[in-house]
Order: sequence, then structure tokens, then C-alpha cells
Amino acid sequence: MSRLDSFIRRLQAQRVCLDHAVGLIRDLPGPVLELGLGNGRTYDHLRERLPGRDIYVCERQVAAHPDCIPPDRFLILGDMRETLPQARARIGAAVALVHADLGSGDAEANRRQAAELAPLIANLLRPGGIVVSDQALATPRLRPLELPTGVKPGRYFLYRAAEG
Amino acid sequence: MSRLDSFIRRLQAQRVCLDHAVGLIRDLPGPVLELGLGNGRTYDHLRERLPGRDIYVCERQVAAHPDCIPPDRFLILGDMRETLPQARARIGAAVALVHADLGSGDAEANRRQAAELAPLIANLLRPGGIVVSDQALATPRLRPLELPTGVKPGRYFLYRAAEG
Repeated sequence: MSRLDSFIRRLQAQRVCLDHAVGLIRDLPGPVLELGLGNGRTYDHLRERLPGRDIYVCERQVAAHPDCIPPDRFLILGDMRETLPQARARIGAAVALVHADLGSGDAEANRRQAAELAPLIANLLRPGGIVVSDQALATPRLRPLELPTGVKPGRYFLYRAAEG
Repeated sequence: MSRLDSFIRRLQAQRVCLDHAVGLIRDLPGPVLELGLGNGRTYDHLRERLPGRDIYVCERQVAAHPDCIPPDRFLILGDMRETLPQARARIGAAVALVHADLGSGDAEANRRQAAELAPLIANLLRPGGIVVSDQALATPRLRPLELPTGVKPGRYFLYRAAEG
């Protein structure tokens, strides 16, 4: 499988998981939080699929396509290890859905970052809230969910927040 | 259609066109020329699909994944308006397949670049040679080919080089 094949599969898995999560939060009110804006493609996807929701975005430095940059009031700039602990107050509500697309090419750095951010992410979710993530997130409050059909385990990750 | 949807479609169209072109040159000897290395995904795809072929790459500045950087002798560095006129001598043979993935977000710059490069690309091809391109290439020697099933016209482009 070429890197082109593998990239297409990853993007398809990402989209299938996002669309699945959109269905899972249909009856769960609350804003959405995108961790990592990147080029803005998944932000654009979420705002298209969830037209009624506020979508907040955490990003260190914005480098997205100009059409995919959220309004200032929804943009939380800075290192997520510092911004996520403050994000609950900034957002003003518990979150229904988090999408975390955080990985770089460095697997060890990815694991470290996921371990640091997982409990911070878990704290922002309302009970029953959903996380879609490109990294495994091991923290007590996040319970792994079955992946939608066609998504190979380990390619993307889905969690539901427990009570409390 | 979100930018994620549209990006997935573009990558799928790119792959379908590349795989189709690989079939079209099955009985046509000659090296392959990749214009624009980018992250190296299509270079990796071509070398996987065409294990017996030399693949030359023109790029202004290499910024690809380390696994997807061609050996130095296949790398032609510099502005393609300057390197393509010299490439025939460097490659030492007429080319069977060119893949040009040149577009940026600036449609007017893309048109200008395609107009400048189209005749230079055409000059490098052997008769019957194939071009797969993300931009329309209008130059007498390149005859448009029908796109493979499922690829929307305008999303990607296919040409065959005439005699001479």
C-alpha cells in the first residue's frame, strides 16, 4: 500500500468516524471542540454537518485555508496543555463532541501528548459526550466505542464520556 | 460538500488517473517524470506501481517525508521553467509518463504556470507518452484523453503525446 493509498484510507476513516459521531450526539446538546485546526478541512466538515452548533477550535498557530478559520470568539489560541484547563470557562458549557487530530510523524511525541491531553479533554465533556481522535486516549472517564464499519482498529479512535 | 469531502475526492481522482496511466504505458518503455514532489505521496505511489521504472523528480525545494525522497541522481532541483528545458539531456531518454501536480490555491498563478510548462512537458515525452496533470495543459502536441470512470471532468487531466 503506497503512502497515497494509506493517506486516502486515513481521511476516509476520519470522515466516517466524524459522521458517525455527528449521529451519536444528535440528541445531546452542547458545543463542539476541534483540537488542532490544521488546514481547516475537518473544521469545515463539522460546521457543514452540524450547522446549529457552536464549534470552538484550539490551535497553537492558525495556518488554515482563509475560508476555514473560525470567528475570533471561537478560537482558543495557545499550547493546549495551558488552554484546555481554562477552556471550560471560556466555552461556558460542557462539550458534546471533541475532535482531536493531533498526531505528527513522531510516534513517541504523539503518545506523550495524548497522555497529557486525555484527562484535560475528558474534563471538558458532558456525560455521554463523544471524542473522535487520531490518537488513543487512555483516561478513566473515556470509554472506548466500537468503530464504524470499515474503519480498521487503530486508524482512528472513538470514546464516550462516562458520568461525572 | 465540505473541504474534507472535496479533498478526498481529489485524492481518489488522482489515484484513479495515476493507476489508469500506469496501465496505458504498460507496453511503452521509458522513464517516469514527477513534477512537484510535495510530501512524496504520489512519488511513492508511482514507484510502488512501476517498480521497474526510473522515476525522475523535478522540485524547487524538497520538503517530503524522508521515506519518499528520491535518490540524488533522480532529483532535478530548481525552477522547472529552467530545469525542464535541460531535463532531456539529464534523463537521457524520452519519457513515457509525466505526472504534474503543480497547483496552488491561486487559480491565476496556476493557469500562468501551466501555460509556461505545457510545451516544456510535451517536449520531454516520447510519442504515445502519457501526462497526468492537476492542471489543464494546452499545447499542440498533447491530445486530451478520456478520464477513467468516476473522475469528474476538470478534477484531473490526462493527455497523450502525438508523434514528433
